[in-house]
Amino acid sequence: MAKDFRQQLKIEPRDEAAAEQARQHIDQLTKPLGSLGRLEALAVELAAITGQAFPEVAPPGVIVFAADHGVAAEGVSAYPQEVTVQMVANMANGGAGINVFSRQIGAIQQIVDVGVAREVDAPGVKNRRIRAGSGNLLREPAMTREEAVRAVETGIESAVEIIEKGAKLLIVGEVGIGNTTPSSAVLAALTGADPDEIVGRGSGLTDEGLRQKKEVVRKALALHRPDPNQPLDVLASVGGLEIGAMAGAMLGAASRRIPVLLDGFIAGVAALLAVRLMPNASHYLIAGHRSQEPGHLHVLKVLGKEPLLDLRLRLGEGTGAALAYPLVEAAARMVREMATFASAGVSNK
Amino acid sequence: MAKDFRQQLKIEPRDEAAAEQARQHIDQLTKPLGSLGRLEALAVELAAITGQAFPEVAPPGVIVFAADHGVAAEGVSAYPQEVTVQMVANMANGGAGINVFSRQIGAIQQIVDVGVAREVDAPGVKNRRIRAGSGNLLREPAMTREEAVRAVETGIESAVEIIEKGAKLLIVGEVGIGNTTPSSAVLAALTGADPDEIVGRGSGLTDEGLRQKKEVVRKALALHRPDPNQPLDVLASVGGLEIGAMAGAMLGAASRRIPVLLDGFIAGVAALLAVRLMPNASHYLIAGHRSQEPGHLHVLKVLGKEPLLDLRLRLGEGTGAALAYPLVEAAARMVREMATFASAGVSNK
Repeated sequence: MAKDFRQQLKIEPRDEAAAEQARQHIDQLTKPLGSLGRLEALAVELAAITGQAFPEVAPPGVIVFAADHGVAAEGVSAYPQEVTVQMVANMANGGAGINVFSRQIGAIQQIVDVGVAREVDAPGVKNRRIRAGSGNLLREPAMTREEAVRAVETGIESAVEIIEKGAKLLIVGEVGIGNTTPSSAVLAALTGADPDEIVGRGSGLTDEGLRQKKEVVRKALALHRPDPNQPLDVLASVGGLEIGAMAGAMLGAASRRIPVLLDGFIAGVAALLAVRLMPNASHYLIAGHRSQEPGHLHVLKVLGKEPLLDLRLRLGEGTGAALAYPLVEAAARMVREMATFASAGVSNK
Repeated sequence: MAKDFRQQLKIEPRDEAAAEQARQHIDQLTKPLGSLGRLEALAVELAAITGQAFPEVAPPGVIVFAADHGVAAEGVSAYPQEVTVQMVANMANGGAGINVFSRQIGAIQQIVDVGVAREVDAPGVKNRRIRAGSGNLLREPAMTREEAVRAVETGIESAVEIIEKGAKLLIVGEVGIGNTTPSSAVLAALTGADPDEIVGRGSGLTDEGLRQKKEVVRKALALHRPDPNQPLDVLASVGGLEIGAMAGAMLGAASRRIPVLLDGFIAGVAALLAVRLMPNASHYLIAGHRSQEPGHLHVLKVLGKEPLLDLRLRLGEGTGAALAYPLVEAAARMVREMATFASAGVSNK
């Protein structure tokens, strides 16, 4: 096998000493023991991830990877393929949901075209095109194994770039009409889950569209029979370019001890891919929200993560993670800014 | 009956036209229909509350009302009474949880002493003392009816003041050792709920303390037998000064069409009191989070509100509402800032 990112990237285990230091400090803060609930656990996680008992997560970085999917020709989405290009342009203009919520949280934003069907000519969109949309996984592999490796490596590089610009936490979003279909196929391939249980309506399929989408996933898996122990082959045969890039970005962040705040279903599948590629990546992932897409619950279970929000979102783009970000920031601020019983002169029983 | 705030304050019904205008605009935004889930419903609520289809909720105002409780002498709290004064001083110094989260959301902050046991000498704490702590409700009324009216009126005035300073949304918090006991008694009195079902551990009672606290609530109700149809009598006999002020602040905000983002159990009980005083107030309340205190679930059910967050918090002070605030801000920004299909040139099927 050719040398790839797995030989170059190093992902450290959790920093248990920093976690323990954070835990002890939190118990000295002016509040009843444990009364900030999940925020306290989150602050301990941030310490374990960053290696800092007093972690900083601001500013966050938001990378949106864009790509098209040959399988869109099979009627698996409520929207036509040209919407990918249109939405990338909308994002470049700051009008999409992810732009609005990114501005709110003061994020460094980056859109990366890793394979939209036709080239996007919009300022601020980084051209890292690997191919003009993936192959139709119902008939052919989504991409070659080399392209799959390049997708992951593009993600790693994008993460490193935004971290070097100052991002202290990473949110990874996507845009790509049809991309819940390859995501479902990757999830089924990696976990053996039944497509009936995990395929959902995506951006809003009818009953007939949903039936068709399940059939497409089933047939693609039967055609390619990807080996669950070869995550790059799963990505190449039934995945998508942005899914590979998202997994790569998560690996890149993990290699720099930067927390990754997960969005919904597609980001969750990319996270699972990242963890199968490099298991230590799991420690760097925080689940932002629970999506309405049925496969997401399965992903969260397999990843062993409990989401912070449950707001019945199903937009993608990274929006659910951006909405959850203020809670992560609050956890970090709690440790850094709250007074202790001793410093404030408050009786601790 | 003497003239009180109910003759002077006017609370309008929801603005259904603004709500409908928001609803229609949201369906034109560049995202699949309904894909921002509860955020969309929240934006419609904000329109109905403010009368603006494109509502603004920044900056928020956070008022913390502080008071002591005679019933603290009965061992109903894990902390001694002097912690109230100490925590007020800590808040004046910016070291409490509510300060940290208020800074994060850019809130206008105000601490109001409505009846701490001994006067708090800290800069920035507004002195609106009605009496030096409430009476011990196990033996005497918590306050007179006139004091109850003054507590509510102080709350109304405090809300109007912070709104005139620019607050576009109100969070009402509290500090007062022992205050989950009168809150539980008020809730039981107003709804007929069984103390066994709604009395919880507050800041961290032992099993024995919890048993004792339930007994105190039961005995207080048997002693005073407050009429559930006379909410001011309920407040006077088994309530607390800050609970009355919180209810008043909510009424004041509602009278100005300013949304109120609810914190946990104590704020929920104050909200119920506000709604019993002036039923239209209900339209102006948004549930911020679900507290660990068992009575809170009951309050939310009676109010008919679904909380935005469930993070196992039980700190009070307004912290749960401050943590939920970014979601409310995101809902408002969504309507104001997202592009429409037409403006962005994106195909809507």
